[in-house]
Amino acid sequence: MSERIPVALGERSYTIHVGSGLLARAGEFLAPLARGVVPVVTDAHVAPLYLESCAASLRQAGLTPAPVVLDPGESTKSFSNLERLLDILLDSGIDRGGLIVALGGGVTGDITGFAAGVLKRGVAYAQVPTTLLAQVDSSVGGKTAINTRQGKNLVGLFHQPAIVIADTDLPCSLRRRELAAGYAEVAKYGALGDARFFSWLEENARDALADDPEKRVYMVAHSCRMKAEIVGRDERESGDRALLNLGHTFAHALEAATGYSERLLHGEAVAIGMVLAFRLSANLGFSPVSDVERLRKHLEDISLPVDLADIPGERPGPETMLGHMTHDKKMKNGRLAFVLVRGLGQAFVSDDVPIDAVRAVLE
Amino acid sequence: MSERIPVALGERSYTIHVGSGLLARAGEFLAPLARGVVPVVTDAHVAPLYLESCAASLRQAGLTPAPVVLDPGESTKSFSNLERLLDILLDSGIDRGGLIVALGGGVTGDITGFAAGVLKRGVAYAQVPTTLLAQVDSSVGGKTAINTRQGKNLVGLFHQPAIVIADTDLPCSLRRRELAAGYAEVAKYGALGDARFFSWLEENARDALADDPEKRVYMVAHSCRMKAEIVGRDERESGDRALLNLGHTFAHALEAATGYSERLLHGEAVAIGMVLAFRLSANLGFSPVSDVERLRKHLEDISLPVDLADIPGERPGPETMLGHMTHDKKMKNGRLAFVLVRGLGQAFVSDDVPIDAVRAVLE
Repeated sequence: MSERIPVALGERSYTIHVGSGLLARAGEFLAPLARGVVPVVTDAHVAPLYLESCAASLRQAGLTPAPVVLDPGESTKSFSNLERLLDILLDSGIDRGGLIVALGGGVTGDITGFAAGVLKRGVAYAQVPTTLLAQVDSSVGGKTAINTRQGKNLVGLFHQPAIVIADTDLPCSLRRRELAAGYAEVAKYGALGDARFFSWLEENARDALADDPEKRVYMVAHSCRMKAEIVGRDERESGDRALLNLGHTFAHALEAATGYSERLLHGEAVAIGMVLAFRLSANLGFSPVSDVERLRKHLEDISLPVDLADIPGERPGPETMLGHMTHDKKMKNGRLAFVLVRGLGQAFVSDDVPIDAVRAVLE
Repeated sequence: MSERIPVALGERSYTIHVGSGLLARAGEFLAPLARGVVPVVTDAHVAPLYLESCAASLRQAGLTPAPVVLDPGESTKSFSNLERLLDILLDSGIDRGGLIVALGGGVTGDITGFAAGVLKRGVAYAQVPTTLLAQVDSSVGGKTAINTRQGKNLVGLFHQPAIVIADTDLPCSLRRRELAAGYAEVAKYGALGDARFFSWLEENARDALADDPEKRVYMVAHSCRMKAEIVGRDERESGDRALLNLGHTFAHALEAATGYSERLLHGEAVAIGMVLAFRLSANLGFSPVSDVERLRKHLEDISLPVDLADIPGERPGPETMLGHMTHDKKMKNGRLAFVLVRGLGQAFVSDDVPIDAVRAVLE
């Protein structure tokens, strides 16, 4: 049970493989792309779960896996870790025609993709995402980055992977809360561009997240298909790719206001952010109030937070949030750029949202 | 007196402007590409000579230059300096639609181009090369990099500049020895692909390097034209671009053997390396011995070293040199890849050079 999704980017095209049991077949997929030593970059949480299965499969395919185990967590995406990783990769004996494997969540994929992109001016890499969030979002599209003092993902590059292998069995080992947070990005695809998919999710998402592997494959594959289609149209985010940021302007401000902590996971912030973006769209007369309620109800069904009041601890005030948003974005004549909707599945970019309307939904 | 040379690379195309007095007109060329704050990255040697002229021109064009002065020298191309430069650029207020100026030699261009390439996943930059070497070689073609413990230029990326402005008056301030070393790369263009240009150089190079600005513009412009043409055919060095490495396999080994020191400048190593590559080609029966002598005599005319014996201090032995070369390159069945010639202006890549033939020219 697996699907192949092409990402059409000219000479940078690649295939996303989504399916059950794919990790044990990684070597089979990677052998045509690799030779000799294959560094496998992962983190200390993922290594005990999946490293040996991945490495065994590579060895079986005649490759020589060389594991590199990073510390887990967002703080790994730093300049000093990038330097350390490049140092290890340069010593590994990999050459310009080689392949590096990123086995893990978004952090591992982001720093590994960046390192691959600058190692000898660009070496191929494979994304083998182990979390739901990475499978439906960060592993596809070639955005790589590290964080700096000034903010998240401010240093990086577009470096498309040579292949993505998403084994849909792996996210089952996630904490229930992390799985739900990853799911927020799945719901986003329905909310921004596919009302039929959203309806399917309302019906089937709980099964897909629990014990129905076939539905899970469909859910992940359809999300990847939608992202691949948008990235194929706009690789470097000069237009349509911005639609993927539905809910993310609010989400980034919420994450900043809560200190990027366990209080609020990225996907949870996206869930609240999407509901706010829908409410903002309704208040501005672009979309029906009933769609706000429908989105909200569905996210609640998956046990996601949907309100500022759902955040544990002190509630971030509207002025704090606005401060983060205007720092993040350019404000022009008191107006901000936002992804809005004309209803479920119909997102669009507006660069003309009055700041007072934003303030209103935050109050 | 100036020339415009197009570099045809699809959406990454740009123009090289070569001429006398262009620095004072930098603002005029850059204004259409920039807005607001324009970081001008330079080094402590170049700043007192040219920074104010460049900055004044930018101000006159309505831009706000923000100087960043690096330490001079190859050791600036380090990870820690890259991090420091990115930190300054992120604080400068430049946004994704902005422009960064690299004002200086190869070191400044390499680290600035790299930083621009990863700042917010890619910001445009302008090359304003101040040395002859940078004007005819490193500022064109988009290769950027820093050095690591393992070697030179091992971490970097291909990031084409948005424009190159080569003011041919500037190299006049170089030490005579540096000017000659930069000239080695000019002679290389004739030697690898244009016998007529080589003849022109035999006749005119001394004037061009001394007091004939018109000949200097032609010399630099023709070199850029040849590099632009080759890079346009093979941006990422999967084929023909390797021809630009004529003499460089020997040169890199010579630089490594002399500790990348003042004993032997890069261009001086290239001069000796080219003569060795021509001799190797003659010994293998590919080209006439008379062309070795012709190249050698011309380089001597420009006061460049042409023999291993011309290197001050202890002469690097053949086995040391071979050690560096086989470390640098992959050896297959005792055979090495080299750029050889079928005579002046007719370089080709061979991956089949017997190591004993290489040893012979080193002895």
